[in-house]
Amino acid sequence: MQLRIENCGASRDQILALALRLGPYLERLQRVADEGGYDAAECSINLPGDEMLWQQVQRMQRKTATSGLKYLIDIGIGGSNLGTKAVYDALVGYADLLEPHRFPKMLFVDTNDPEVLSRFTRFLEQTIERPEEVLINAISKSGSTTETIVNLELIWRTFQHRFPDALDRWVITTDYQSKLWRLAQEKGISALPIPPKVGGRYSVFSAVGLFPLAAAGIDVSGLREGARDACTRCLSADLWQNPAVLSAVVLFLQHQQGKMIHDTFLFHPELESCGKWYRQLMGESIGKEKNLDEITVHAGITPTVSIGSTDLHSMAQLTLGGPNDKVTTFIWCESIAIDPPIPQLLAFPGLVDGIAGTSANTVMQAILQGVKASYRSHRLPFMEMILADLSPKSLAEMLQVQMFQMMCLAQLFHVNAFDQPNVEDYKTETRRFLESGA
Amino acid sequence: MQLRIENCGASRDQILALALRLGPYLERLQRVADEGGYDAAECSINLPGDEMLWQQVQRMQRKTATSGLKYLIDIGIGGSNLGTKAVYDALVGYADLLEPHRFPKMLFVDTNDPEVLSRFTRFLEQTIERPEEVLINAISKSGSTTETIVNLELIWRTFQHRFPDALDRWVITTDYQSKLWRLAQEKGISALPIPPKVGGRYSVFSAVGLFPLAAAGIDVSGLREGARDACTRCLSADLWQNPAVLSAVVLFLQHQQGKMIHDTFLFHPELESCGKWYRQLMGESIGKEKNLDEITVHAGITPTVSIGSTDLHSMAQLTLGGPNDKVTTFIWCESIAIDPPIPQLLAFPGLVDGIAGTSANTVMQAILQGVKASYRSHRLPFMEMILADLSPKSLAEMLQVQMFQMMCLAQLFHVNAFDQPNVEDYKTETRRFLESGA
Repeated sequence: MQLRIENCGASRDQILALALRLGPYLERLQRVADEGGYDAAECSINLPGDEMLWQQVQRMQRKTATSGLKYLIDIGIGGSNLGTKAVYDALVGYADLLEPHRFPKMLFVDTNDPEVLSRFTRFLEQTIERPEEVLINAISKSGSTTETIVNLELIWRTFQHRFPDALDRWVITTDYQSKLWRLAQEKGISALPIPPKVGGRYSVFSAVGLFPLAAAGIDVSGLREGARDACTRCLSADLWQNPAVLSAVVLFLQHQQGKMIHDTFLFHPELESCGKWYRQLMGESIGKEKNLDEITVHAGITPTVSIGSTDLHSMAQLTLGGPNDKVTTFIWCESIAIDPPIPQLLAFPGLVDGIAGTSANTVMQAILQGVKASYRSHRLPFMEMILADLSPKSLAEMLQVQMFQMMCLAQLFHVNAFDQPNVEDYKTETRRFLESGA
Repeated sequence: MQLRIENCGASRDQILALALRLGPYLERLQRVADEGGYDAAECSINLPGDEMLWQQVQRMQRKTATSGLKYLIDIGIGGSNLGTKAVYDALVGYADLLEPHRFPKMLFVDTNDPEVLSRFTRFLEQTIERPEEVLINAISKSGSTTETIVNLELIWRTFQHRFPDALDRWVITTDYQSKLWRLAQEKGISALPIPPKVGGRYSVFSAVGLFPLAAAGIDVSGLREGARDACTRCLSADLWQNPAVLSAVVLFLQHQQGKMIHDTFLFHPELESCGKWYRQLMGESIGKEKNLDEITVHAGITPTVSIGSTDLHSMAQLTLGGPNDKVTTFIWCESIAIDPPIPQLLAFPGLVDGIAGTSANTVMQAILQGVKASYRSHRLPFMEMILADLSPKSLAEMLQVQMFQMMCLAQLFHVNAFDQPNVEDYKTETRRFLESGA
C-alpha cells in the first residue's frame, strides 16, 4: 500500500513537527511488538504474527468446514462482524447475487430486525437441506451482547429443531471463560477464545475474523502476511516512510483547520464494507467525551463512506459546492486482475466521447483523475491510499495501517483509543426498558 | 407516516416563526399541483397522480415482464437508480441472498468497476440460460451519463452476442428525443420518456422508478397511493400538520445552531438504501456554492446514514461522547407484519436479562427507547418519522415527504433545490482525461 499526501493541505514542516511528537509512542508500540503476547492495550498488533492462534484456527477449520458447506452464518454485531464482512465483501461477497452457484457464501446476522429474522428462519427451514450445508459461528466478546444472544437463541431453536444432532455445526467465539464460553462447553459446542485486551474494533485478525474467513475459503495466510508487512512499516522510525504516522498527522492537522468529517472515498464498490469497518474504528477510537486527563473535550471526527463513482452522482455537489468541512482519503487499486474492454465500434455511438476502444478501468481512472483535479481546484484536502491490487494481502495491509493510524491519531488527540465508555449510556437505558417489560 | 418533533431542540415559537415564512412557497406548490403537468421546477409532485404515465408503465410492463423473468437488470447511477433501489431493497431486496429461489430479482449496475463488471459478464454468459430470464432497463436522463453508457455498451455486447434476436429484452428510459432516445428508436428498442423538468433525485415516481419496480413485481399502485397521500399532507396550510414544513424548519434551525450533519437513523436494516437515496436528495439540493442571488454561501448539510441497531455498535460512542454537531431523524415502523418470538426457556440462559418470552421486535424497540433516552440526556436533538408499516404505501409516503421537505428546506436556505452546477466541475475534468486518452 502506498500513501500519497501531496494534496493533504499541510506543509512538510507542519507534518514533521507533529510526527516527531509521536516518536515516544512509536517506541512504545515497538516494545509491545518485541515483547509479543497480549498484555498491552495495543496488543492487537501481535495478532497477525501469532502462530498458535493460526494453528488453533486451522484446526477448527479442518474440523468444521466440511466439503459440502454452502453457508457460513456469522452471528455478531459491531466489532464482532464488521472486519469479517469487510474482507469477505471485498474479495467475493459483493458479487454473491451474481454467482448463485458459488459456495460457501457468508451470511451476516447482526440486528434483531423481525422481518429479516423471519426470512432467515424460513431460509433455515426451507432452503437448507442437510446440516452439513451450514456452519454457524456466533461471536460476542463479552458473551452478553443483546442482539447476538437473541439471534443465537432464535437460530438455535430453528436449527436444532430441524437438525437435533448437529452440534458440530456450531462454533462460538468469545472471551475465554466468559459465561457464554462455559455454556458452550456444557453443551459440547466448539469454542474459540479472544485475547481479553483485544477490543472488537481491533479484532479482525484474531479468531473473530480469521476463523469464519478461513471456513469460507478466503486466503487467510495472505491476510496475515499483509498485516505483518504493514506492522513493520507502521513501526518504522523513518517518519516519511510510516503511513500510519503520516496519515494520522494529516487527519489531526486538518481537524484543527475545521475539517470535522473524514470521508473515506473508496473507488471500488466492493470495498464499501471496509469503509463501514473504518467508521467504527474512527468513531469509537477518537469520539470521546473526556481525554486522558479526564477533562471534558467532546473530541471526534465523523467518519463517512463514499463509493466511486456511485457517490459522485449523489454527494459531489455538496462536497464541491458546500461547506469545506471534510478531509478525504481516496482508496483505489493500482493493478486490476481483469479489465473488460469497451468495443472500438460502439453500439450507441456519439453519446460519450473518448470511451471507444478503452476499458472499464480506463474510464474509472479518468473519473478518479477528474475528481482529484476538481478537489485540487476547490482546495479540498485529500490523501490517497493506493493498494497494489485487490488481493487478501493488500487488503489486510490497508486494514492494519488504518488500525495503527487510529492508535497514533488517538495519541495526538490525547484520548484513549481502546475504550468506548459512552456506549454504556444507551445500553443501561435499554436494559431498563427490557427489564421493565416495556 | 407520523412526524414527531418534541425532542427537536427548538421551541414552538421558533418553529412557527420560520414555518410562516414558508407560507408563500406552499401556495406556489399548491398552484403547481392544481395546474398539473410538468412545466414548473417542482413538477415532480405531479408524478404520483399522472394516470397517463401509469398506463404507459403498465403497458410496457405487460409487454416486457414475461412470466419466466428472473432478473431485472437496472443500468443507471445516482438519480437514475437510487430511488428504485431504495424501494426494492426495503421491500424484498435486502433478503435476496436468503431467498435464492424467489424471482424476479433486481440487479443494479452503476459504476464501471472492472472486477464487478467482469463478474457480471460471466453471470450473463453462464447463469442466464434463456433471454426471457432477463429484462434490461438502461436509464439515463440526459442519455449521456458516462458510467451508464459504458455499462450499456458492455452488457449490450455480451447479451447480444449470446442472444442476437432478443431486442425485446431491452427498455431504455431517457429524455424524450435525447440522442439515446433516437438511437433506441433506430434499433427498435422500447423507450420510456422522463418529463424534462423532473431531475434525477426527484424522479422515483416517474418511469425511472415505476417501470423497473413494476416489472420486478412490486406493488406500484400502493407506492403511487402513498405518494399521493403525502402530497395532500405536505400541501396542508395547517403548518402543525404538515410534516414537510415542520421537518424542514427543524433541520434549518438546528443547522443555525451548528448542526452541520443530518443523520438519518433507520431502525430497519432493509431501509439502508432509502437513506442512501436521501443522501443524494439532501446533498445535491442544499449543498450549494451560491444562493439564489448568486452570492457565494457554500451552503449545505452533510447527510449521513445510520442503521439500528448495527451502528450503535460503531457510531454511538462518537455521537454520545463526541462533538454535538448532528441532528438526527430516527425512522421506524409502528406495526410489524411478523415478529419472531424468543423462547421462554432459553438455550443460553443468564447472558442477557429480560429477553426470555419476548420477541425480536420487543428487543429492537427497547434498544430504540434506550437510544432515544440517552440522546435526550445528552441533549442531542432528534426527530422521528414513524411509518405505519413496511408496505409500499408507507414507504412511498416517506419518500414523498422527504422530497417536499427538501424543497422547503432549500427555500429556507434560499438556494435552488433542483440544480447541481458543481457536478459539472469534475465531469469537465473527467472528459479532459478521457479525450486525451490518459
